[in-house]
Amino acid sequence: MEFLVRFETTLPPGMDSEEVGRLKTNERKRATELRQEGKLVRLWRVPGRRAVVGLWKAASTTELHEAIASLPQFPWMDVTVEPLALHPQEL
Amino acid sequence: MEFLVRFETTLPPGMDSEEVGRLKTNERKRATELRQEGKLVRLWRVPGRRAVVGLWKAASTTELHEAIASLPQFPWMDVTVEPLALHPQEL
Amino acid sequence: MEFLVRFETTLPPGMDSEEVGRLKTNERKRATELRQEGKLVRLWRVPGRRAVVGLWKAASTTELHEAIASLPQFPWMDVTVEPLALHPQEL
Amino acid sequence: MEFLVRFETTLPPGMDSEEVGRLKTNERKRATELRQEGKLVRLWRVPGRRAVVGLWKAASTTELHEAIASLPQFPWMDVTVEPLALHPQEL
Amino acid sequence: MEFLVRFETTLPPGMDSEEVGRLKTNERKRATELRQEGKLVRLWRVPGRRAVVGLWKAASTTELHEAIASLPQFPWMDVTVEPLALHPQEL
Amino acid sequence: MEFLVRFETTLPPGMDSEEVGRLKTNERKRATELRQEGKLVRLWRVPGRRAVVGLWKAASTTELHEAIASLPQFPWMDVTVEPLALHPQEL
Amino acid sequence: MEFLVRFETTLPPGMDSEEVGRLKTNERKRATELRQEGKLVRLWRVPGRRAVVGLWKAASTTELHEAIASLPQFPWMDVTVEPLALHPQEL
Amino acid sequence: MEFLVRFETTLPPGMDSEEVGRLKTNERKRATELRQEGKLVRLWRVPGRRAVVGLWKAASTTELHEAIASLPQFPWMDVTVEPLALHPQEL
Amino acid sequence: MEFLVRFETTLPPGMDSEEVGRLKTNERKRATELRQEGKLVRLWRVPGRRAVVGLWKAASTTELHEAIASLPQFPWMDVTVEPLALHPQEL
Amino acid sequence: MEFLVRFETTLPPGMDSEEVGRLKTNERKRATELRQEGKLVRLWRVPGRRAVVGLWKAASTTELHEAIASLPQFPWMDVTVEPLALHPQEL
Repeated sequence: MEFLVRFETTLPPGMDSEEVGRLKTNERKRATELRQEGKLVRLWRVPGRRAVVGLWKAASTTELHEAIASLPQFPWMDVTVEPLALHPQEL
Repeated sequence: MEFLVRFETTLPPGMDSEEVGRLKTNERKRATELRQEGKLVRLWRVPGRRAVVGLWKAASTTELHEAIASLPQFPWMDVTVEPLALHPQEL
Repeated sequence: MEFLVRFETTLPPGMDSEEVGRLKTNERKRATELRQEGKLVRLWRVPGRRAVVGLWKAASTTELHEAIASLPQFPWMDVTVEPLALHPQEL
Repeated sequence: MEFLVRFETTLPPGMDSEEVGRLKTNERKRATELRQEGKLVRLWRVPGRRAVVGLWKAASTTELHEAIASLPQFPWMDVTVEPLALHPQEL
Repeated sequence: MEFLVRFETTLPPGMDSEEVGRLKTNERKRATELRQEGKLVRLWRVPGRRAVVGLWKAASTTELHEAIASLPQFPWMDVTVEPLALHPQEL
Repeated sequence: MEFLVRFETTLPPGMDSEEVGRLKTNERKRATELRQEGKLVRLWRVPGRRAVVGLWKAASTTELHEAIASLPQFPWMDVTVEPLALHPQEL
Repeated sequence: MEFLVRFETTLPPGMDSEEVGRLKTNERKRATELRQEGKLVRLWRVPGRRAVVGLWKAASTTELHEAIASLPQFPWMDVTVEPLALHPQEL
Repeated sequence: MEFLVRFETTLPPGMDSEEVGRLKTNERKRATELRQEGKLVRLWRVPGRRAVVGLWKAASTTELHEAIASLPQFPWMDVTVEPLALHPQEL
Repeated sequence: MEFLVRFETTLPPGMDSEEVGRLKTNERKRATELRQEGKLVRLWRVPGRRAVVGLWKAASTTELHEAIASLPQFPWMDVTVEPLALHPQEL
Repeated sequence: MEFLVRFETTLPPGMDSEEVGRLKTNERKRATELRQEGKLVRLWRVPGRRAVVGLWKAASTTELHEAIASLPQFPWMDVTVEPLALHPQEL
């Protein structure tokens, strides 16, 4: 199943820059793993914002949730998940 | 997978009352079939409105779409689908 | 009577991690009690968020309020309550 | 239990004026009955609109729904129901 | 004149608990006075929230404002005032 | 008491142009009367729309409602009323 | 450049069924051409609605507009276009 | 003074096609006049919609309103006007 | 030209009370000057809130912006400006 | 391609004033460079707010994103980007 997943990350203002750096590196690493697992299919930037839209694949919404929640920046992410149904023209 | 599905049906004002009656009968029949198939699990009324909220089950969003679209009043239904993920406390 | 109750919990950023741990343990304990009392019937996660949707039962909205307010994380919860009416097809 | 119920009635433009008159008379009659049954407690007009806000009482949301749905103009009413919980200062 | 007044109070996170206690006691005292003055007529809780809906009476919106602003927690209250007009069925 | 009253009028598409003309003439006449009664104080156009914002005066919201409802185009008006309280700098 | 394009089509209620049939056939034909031109990349159904979300490609927003406006059902489509920027992880 | 003016035109469904053609021709003619008068400065299409955004100039909001209201399709236009203030970097 | 200007002021929680007092005094002084300049015409309180609605006059939106920005509390004000056009009935 | 870009900047309350001064100087410098590159075409102030609307040009949304993200105050900016399509009357 496919989903459109939007998220915007707002780290706490006072967070120390080293911690921010480590988080971002781990985030990229985790995102790469999710690509290899076939869960994260495509990623775009929302122009002008620190936000992204992604095409994700998962066997269920529960699996999708666990994949998103595995991202290191998850505690500071504002996420909306939009389920997609197959269009007959794609068959 | 489980979904919360809301819909409000607005039939065209001029529709002839016999047609309305037939539609509603077929709607109930189809809903009963969907229950027997395990797709429609629970149905509630939104108090004060001609709208319902239902707990649905489907193997995928595509299957869910086809189930909803099979309802005779589908062309006049305003539907929102909310995907639900399993909560660990339910395991 | 049945209600759909949504809530998202945002603990203050500076809260010490032990306090957070204790709150979460007590929250799970209280939720289990509410299940045994028949008030909390089903719980789902909103995919991608630190939010839940639950099916609750209470004899009145006042009783429902007291049950929700008894959750340890209540001071930091953003809650919306949706009343549900019985649908004739469920009789 | 008490509820705040808002509704705005929009009759179809082409409806013949006699039918409108009969509906309004029956509406007032039914409202009076609902008062006598203790279900409709107070009614206010939303200033400037053909809309009302009412304080209603019912043993359950299902009973409330049936009371509202018994109003002759129900098919043309846009209704929102807000559940109210008892405030400790009122005990 | 009658008004529906909603408010939700959010005290600053760091406020010392004694100060919070004193504020809440004074709030209850002031609310009781407003009842005796006939300004605060009925109060309900919004189920699940730290918010209230109240039926208020005042000779003018200015008098209503002064009554609400006299509540000790006013600086931290998010308030909406809805004016109500008399319904002919109430005469 | 003073109120900001916004309204946008949408006459039914099929209304015959003579009827529209008569309505508009009567509307202007009634508006002039309301000015003489001191109820309609100032009127502005919302630039680009067939909508107006007005400063109104009335002894109560009920009196305000009756004044607005006395406008010939009332059945086709979408109105919002905003109550205003006196500002101390105006005393 | 890539865009997320959502649209929901609402044909006029009275439209004769043959005309509806012809429109839908031409719509599918045009959509196929847009795929061959590489403009329409992926299409999904919004579960439960007569609406679609699509991933589109165009050299400019003007070219995108002309492609969407070339769809036979365009006069009855409610469209929103969301521009997407390339994400560095996709390079 | 400069303004951003958005509008979307929805002609009544039953309007006869000749009348539609005449309206559109007159609309273009009037728009050209407004350009010559320096009132309409730039016009863009909202991609995917039958809507436009324009940069307009007028000595006052009243003059702007009269210019917009002079467009033949004004009775069927949904318009929003956004006032713009000069930015110091433009001096 | 006339404008309806709404603003709500939220001073930072930790601001020292003397600084708050000085700001409020200077705010009143500046408001009085703006009245003398004919820019601030009328001011009302939004009942129940720490917010105001004002009728302002300015030769342009740029002049209006500078007048509002000259208020000492401007950095903490949430402002919306609504342009008003002259209504023919006011001529 | 042209875009309407809105942004409102909210610097953290505790930021030291020298840092704020440096940021604003660099912001003006960067904005001037973007003008010279032809990316920032026109800039207006939203009257009454610390917000701007700008007309921008870029070969793609990705290029636009990079231009906006190059502004020193980008981490504290709330941005919305609206894509514009060419209007035939502008050819």
